[in-house]
Amino acid sequence: MLKKPIFFNLFEMNNRTGDSHGLWRHPDSRHHEYNDINFWVTIARKIEEGGFTALFLGDFFGASDVYKGSPETAIRYAMQFPSNDPSLLIPSMAQATTSLGFATTISTTYEHPFHVARRLSTLDHLTNGRIGLNVVTSYIASTARYFGLSEPIAHDRRYAIADEFLSVCYKLWEASWEDGAVKFDVANNIHIDPARVHDISHQGDVFKVAGPHVCEPSPQRTPVIFQAGSSKAGRDFAARHAECVFVQGRTLAAVKENIASIRKRAVDFGRDPGDILMFHQQTAIVAPTRAEAREQFEEYARYRSAESALAQYCGSSGYDLAALDPDSVLTYTATEANQSRAAQYTTQSDRSFRVQEVIDDVGRFGAGILVGTPVDIADRLESIVDETGLDGFNLNSIVTPTTIFEFVDQVMPELRNRGRIAERRSTFRETLFGQGRSHAENASRLAR
Amino acid sequence: MLKKPIFFNLFEMNNRTGDSHGLWRHPDSRHHEYNDINFWVTIARKIEEGGFTALFLGDFFGASDVYKGSPETAIRYAMQFPSNDPSLLIPSMAQATTSLGFATTISTTYEHPFHVARRLSTLDHLTNGRIGLNVVTSYIASTARYFGLSEPIAHDRRYAIADEFLSVCYKLWEASWEDGAVKFDVANNIHIDPARVHDISHQGDVFKVAGPHVCEPSPQRTPVIFQAGSSKAGRDFAARHAECVFVQGRTLAAVKENIASIRKRAVDFGRDPGDILMFHQQTAIVAPTRAEAREQFEEYARYRSAESALAQYCGSSGYDLAALDPDSVLTYTATEANQSRAAQYTTQSDRSFRVQEVIDDVGRFGAGILVGTPVDIADRLESIVDETGLDGFNLNSIVTPTTIFEFVDQVMPELRNRGRIAERRSTFRETLFGQGRSHAENASRLAR
Repeated sequence: MLKKPIFFNLFEMNNRTGDSHGLWRHPDSRHHEYNDINFWVTIARKIEEGGFTALFLGDFFGASDVYKGSPETAIRYAMQFPSNDPSLLIPSMAQATTSLGFATTISTTYEHPFHVARRLSTLDHLTNGRIGLNVVTSYIASTARYFGLSEPIAHDRRYAIADEFLSVCYKLWEASWEDGAVKFDVANNIHIDPARVHDISHQGDVFKVAGPHVCEPSPQRTPVIFQAGSSKAGRDFAARHAECVFVQGRTLAAVKENIASIRKRAVDFGRDPGDILMFHQQTAIVAPTRAEAREQFEEYARYRSAESALAQYCGSSGYDLAALDPDSVLTYTATEANQSRAAQYTTQSDRSFRVQEVIDDVGRFGAGILVGTPVDIADRLESIVDETGLDGFNLNSIVTPTTIFEFVDQVMPELRNRGRIAERRSTFRETLFGQGRSHAENASRLAR
Repeated sequence: MLKKPIFFNLFEMNNRTGDSHGLWRHPDSRHHEYNDINFWVTIARKIEEGGFTALFLGDFFGASDVYKGSPETAIRYAMQFPSNDPSLLIPSMAQATTSLGFATTISTTYEHPFHVARRLSTLDHLTNGRIGLNVVTSYIASTARYFGLSEPIAHDRRYAIADEFLSVCYKLWEASWEDGAVKFDVANNIHIDPARVHDISHQGDVFKVAGPHVCEPSPQRTPVIFQAGSSKAGRDFAARHAECVFVQGRTLAAVKENIASIRKRAVDFGRDPGDILMFHQQTAIVAPTRAEAREQFEEYARYRSAESALAQYCGSSGYDLAALDPDSVLTYTATEANQSRAAQYTTQSDRSFRVQEVIDDVGRFGAGILVGTPVDIADRLESIVDETGLDGFNLNSIVTPTTIFEFVDQVMPELRNRGRIAERRSTFRETLFGQGRSHAENASRLAR
């Protein structure tokens, strides 16, 4: 029986420390070279050679200021601060590669769909159809304050905006220009056929956009849509729009349950559940022997900054754990779970935790990190996929680029030997869904 | 006596036809390859080798729909439609060059200063301090309709918004991060010194932005500010903010008068008038002999589309010339002159024109185009500079890349022999204002 191929994305951020707490002090870490485009080009080339599917650029802006009521900790450890624009890294990396995909992150709460549709069309053109779009709704208060709001917009309202935002984008991408509109007819002096370019005339609750789209159709038209929502509104949004979901879950059982829930909702929305691919974040430390891998793990653990991790957790959960009695109990509810870390708890049966337990858990290095030989890691990745129904992983780096290079050099060849590496095709959507499937059927349907 | 060096920028747009009407049909034109990043990299390398100062990316979005009350003409001739995002072209071109500057265009009416400040900081980092920002206020009705407005915002209000917009950006770029904030102090576990990163706490009429800036200081902090306003509010804005002005004027006398007017206003705002450099658009057709240059001109003229030029003129002036009696008279007034083409007339004593005169003038190929041998063109450029006090030119292309390559290969060596080529330095601002002047003193002052 042919084994299901596994998709690997590298998760990265355009900042000083990546997604790694305290490891910037490790002598091998080069993430602070993020302003040198060659840093990114080197990584993109390496993961393309290694068989990765895509480079996924997360984004976060605002200085997390919930922990101790101040942004001081986040700033001190450069915890996702500063944070540069991710999209601008893509054209150079695309130029240096041939079939690697690139996903970038956009906030539907603080951008306008006109600009986003235009930027993504431009990127899809420049990359020849290798673009994905990660849709986020920006729930952080310190982000809201950049835009004149003292409080973030309420959760369900953000998703309602996001829904209309994507609807506008789909109309621009899918419904404004017919195929064949660009004639380039020198003899008859017709460059573009005006009869095939249409206003979208969108009149919604949030946006009014006349159109037509200012970009001609790009190879994929609509970028591959990524989403990571875990609340009810978030899962509904994913089921309606996403082609790739960044699934949450602290246990494999929880991941499996979330996958089933999203696929079920997708069917409710008239979609084929197989048209949504499921990704989970994964970190791995690999070495030729288990002893070396363990040693590497212990070394990294010594650089780990628990306080940096706490600043992030408090910022995203909204709870200042430093201000609470360590023996008090935190209870997570589904409606509060509008962000990733806290949401990971909601899928477990026990939703209450002592504050000290949470602090210890957040500060600890190692939860979910795979440590071992190439064979160990490959075994474990295969079993995770087989157990949960996941389609792939977003690999998180610990020390950049070391973690990435070691994974590419040691784990990917092992997975390749096992027939588990997904083949890349010319567009990102074809790589994910098969030759000839460049076009986003779901977006096209929702644009009507 | 040392001759004043002349700065040359190439004016370009990320679209199918550049700024050229009908020339897309010429067999040498390759502008429709705009979605291939190599098209841009080749041009950037060529003009860097040739001694240009910068590549200037204009921008326009919306389908011009005033002419005949429809966007049909603009679409048919691909007249600045489609129009892709210009900023995304810059990182790859910067990677392929070492000291060429890059200016991009941003609308302060339809973007938020947070996003713009972040994007420009990212670009200034990625280019190592080679970024300029062309500020426009987007007066076109078809653009307004992408953002839910049936009418564009009134002219003076747009400039008031632009003024506060730049004020927010200056605070983020100049006042949020002190020098030395990035410590990268491994021993003491301090990556960034929180005491040196400040909120901007901007509370204005239009924007409320708490800060701090999410980007660390880039080599120039504030990009070199370009502006092209020609109305009274526009000239005031330029005098207050601009470091480079795109001066209007149909005659050299008008150009000279506009330069004097802006420099005078700059003094009123407490600036050194020499801190503003003046650029004028220029097109040239060069060949080894005058006969060949003339032949080239005639050939290009045969491809010229008068109707495409009319669609642009009507879109920007707001007058549908096709709907007016050709014998009626158009009178331009300063308050109406909130855009470039019509504004060119306001500096002349006679402000009234027969409609047919305007139609003929707009449709004609050749106004202001220099045609001749390298010596002819160099002579004329030198005399224009000496006569008007201009500091440089924005070169417009006719057939891309032919026009550019011929200018670089033939005119630039001639100007170099005459000691007229400005030397490039490592940052864009140093190239324009001298070694050691990377920092924007005006922005820094206005940020306080």
